[in-house]
Amino acid sequence: MATLRIEGAQIITMADGDTQLREGWALEAVDGAITYVGPADQLAPARRPANVPDSRIDGSGCLLLPGFVNAHTHAAMTLFRGAADDMPLDPWLKEKIWPAEAKLTEADVYWGTLLGCAEMIRAGVTCFCDMYHLPRVGARAAMDCGIRMCPSGVLLGIVPNAEDMFVEATEFAREFAARDDLCVHPMLGPHAPYTVPRELMERVIAAAEEIGVPLHIHVAETEANVAESMATYGKRPVQAMDEIGLFDVDVLGAHCVYLDDRDIEIIVEKRVGVAHCPGSNLKLASGIARTRDLLAAGARVGVGTDGCGSNNNLDLLEEARLAALIAKVDTGDPTAMPADAALQMATLGGARAIFLDHCIGSLEAGKRCDCILVDLDAPHMHPRHSLVSHMIYAAQAADVRTTVVNGTVLMRDRELLTIDLGETYAQVAESAERLFG
Amino acid sequence: MATLRIEGAQIITMADGDTQLREGWALEAVDGAITYVGPADQLAPARRPANVPDSRIDGSGCLLLPGFVNAHTHAAMTLFRGAADDMPLDPWLKEKIWPAEAKLTEADVYWGTLLGCAEMIRAGVTCFCDMYHLPRVGARAAMDCGIRMCPSGVLLGIVPNAEDMFVEATEFAREFAARDDLCVHPMLGPHAPYTVPRELMERVIAAAEEIGVPLHIHVAETEANVAESMATYGKRPVQAMDEIGLFDVDVLGAHCVYLDDRDIEIIVEKRVGVAHCPGSNLKLASGIARTRDLLAAGARVGVGTDGCGSNNNLDLLEEARLAALIAKVDTGDPTAMPADAALQMATLGGARAIFLDHCIGSLEAGKRCDCILVDLDAPHMHPRHSLVSHMIYAAQAADVRTTVVNGTVLMRDRELLTIDLGETYAQVAESAERLFG
Repeated sequence: MATLRIEGAQIITMADGDTQLREGWALEAVDGAITYVGPADQLAPARRPANVPDSRIDGSGCLLLPGFVNAHTHAAMTLFRGAADDMPLDPWLKEKIWPAEAKLTEADVYWGTLLGCAEMIRAGVTCFCDMYHLPRVGARAAMDCGIRMCPSGVLLGIVPNAEDMFVEATEFAREFAARDDLCVHPMLGPHAPYTVPRELMERVIAAAEEIGVPLHIHVAETEANVAESMATYGKRPVQAMDEIGLFDVDVLGAHCVYLDDRDIEIIVEKRVGVAHCPGSNLKLASGIARTRDLLAAGARVGVGTDGCGSNNNLDLLEEARLAALIAKVDTGDPTAMPADAALQMATLGGARAIFLDHCIGSLEAGKRCDCILVDLDAPHMHPRHSLVSHMIYAAQAADVRTTVVNGTVLMRDRELLTIDLGETYAQVAESAERLFG
Repeated sequence: MATLRIEGAQIITMADGDTQLREGWALEAVDGAITYVGPADQLAPARRPANVPDSRIDGSGCLLLPGFVNAHTHAAMTLFRGAADDMPLDPWLKEKIWPAEAKLTEADVYWGTLLGCAEMIRAGVTCFCDMYHLPRVGARAAMDCGIRMCPSGVLLGIVPNAEDMFVEATEFAREFAARDDLCVHPMLGPHAPYTVPRELMERVIAAAEEIGVPLHIHVAETEANVAESMATYGKRPVQAMDEIGLFDVDVLGAHCVYLDDRDIEIIVEKRVGVAHCPGSNLKLASGIARTRDLLAAGARVGVGTDGCGSNNNLDLLEEARLAALIAKVDTGDPTAMPADAALQMATLGGARAIFLDHCIGSLEAGKRCDCILVDLDAPHMHPRHSLVSHMIYAAQAADVRTTVVNGTVLMRDRELLTIDLGETYAQVAESAERLFG
């Protein structure tokens, strides 16, 4: 029985969205599950056999928070970071990304994903929702380093090997769903309405229902997506997908930039998770999502970094800040998306969007112990008018000092404990050279 | 004679905007001035008396760049960080900022500015253009820690003590202009066209001409500013100010969000510096400046953080990234503001905007030695497709390892050498408590 106690930190639990600052509280986890969050003086002595050493973290000078949820990424695309920027979407995909992806090996996906995991653990991300080729390999990287992952393959209907992809992805999802792994939560990843024809989409929906996993899909990312949907279905993407039954299963929709009011109603009614990806939407000039309206309507909205091909980092705190900032300029309302709403999107909102809020997203007894300690000893964290404000508007990923997933410390005092960075850098350099050299 | 050599780093000089990566180069500075930037093997042995020890920095694993220029801030407003967010502009100013500013003491301004300097040095900012009350006190903080500063007072025509402010600011500017200090470059700071009536503005213009310093002024930050100018002058702010002769002296215009084509022509013709402040413009929902058009027309554009009341940090790298990202979404063009343009805005462009490009902004023999070493050993800096891209789209302020101003090392390996952070935090906490408690 492994016990972890975190003491001395100020705590924001995010339980039911609560951003109140708790002082003099402590957290206890046993075997990876939170058993206590509350006043330190009411925490019972460790209930362990005398010969099992407690693991104890001194959180003095730090803020303890639930770990960040990266609701949409393609982690292995760290390999593409900086390889092609500031280009129009079409040549970017056709001349740069797809030719490189055509050469991808298992080693590329493994090391690219592991590099992404390293970056995310250092940025306080404890769970990420990933859509990429060779999901079994990506999942192995996550399992090797201990981060929580929701992997899905990529399902495309417009390629010669569409059937192979379907078989691979559904077998992977079925196997991991049966495993009931504490840290790997499989999904199925139909790429997008415009790349997955109706017949295949219906098979994917049926598979998701049968296996009991959510779908992860790009939705209404660009104006072109809307036009394509109108041409194919005579309806906008959300309404078209609703009509064919997509939202009868749990669906995480990435981007959701172009929504009309009816789309938002459907998203709320059908409990669709939204992964808002502001950095990617800005960098690709896609547009600005209606997050204020989505939140006001009660949608489950998280934030995602998207892949490093279009971002170019996996810094979820930056995404939460961008979400708060662009919601204001887009609505002309400086009160839109206040700091507490952005912090919630990065934690509990993300957990709800990816259908894991029963298990993560807040620090509450019964949930898994995914948490971070944020160092408050930097000039940009002073004075201390509001730590919620500081987290969203002033903090940096590098302020995250310690990252815990499932009760296991993955980074302590900025040192990664489960990833050999030197080897990862060397392997990634080799992959990058081969893919783009 | 003090000699500084930086060897082993990869270098981007930004000379004439050059972003090429130089390997095997070295930099030498003597008495704060750069004497050599070029191939390390052509650097002559140190030309110093044998008894004066060389200062040498090993830049291995780092990127050497000119320091960042923060073209518009109110550094002492670190005191306000997180004190009032997510509010409409009017109650924010009237209920929060102005009542607190009415209580400001010299100690508040000193420690608030010093905290800002600490944050900026840690973020690789080597020069900042500041507009705030008690400029003499702010300048003392900068001189005490060694950062380069362009201080100006705030000149307002709509307050009872307008004349005192004018006398204080012009005396300050005159004194420091005569000193010809190597690190303090005074300006005059008429707050904005809508707060400085025409008669006072004309006196300020005459004073700037007589003393020989530039003006630093907020210009066309909001739509309301444009409406006020139309009501007062019958012209938009830039055209109204042009007509009264503002741009016959050197002017740094902060924000410049609302510009029409004629405004841009004037800005280019009259060589007006522009301090683009994307973070503040987003957070206050002011709007998005036409930076692509300004740059295309040949304007001198830098980036500024604005004060921590509306940002809430002094992270110039974040501002440069925001500038690159929002230019794309605003124009619908992912090729707008590529990484090299954003990096230039943060360095040489900023130096040009604040009229110090003869002295800083690039690493060239003859300029002052203001430079930074950026650590490349983080997951988000791998693989190494493009360091220019990584600087703008992936790097964090915390990647800055070493900061040098005027040949003096202000931060070495993340340790601040000229600021006592503990004392600063304590003093700032006291000020914050008094101002807002």
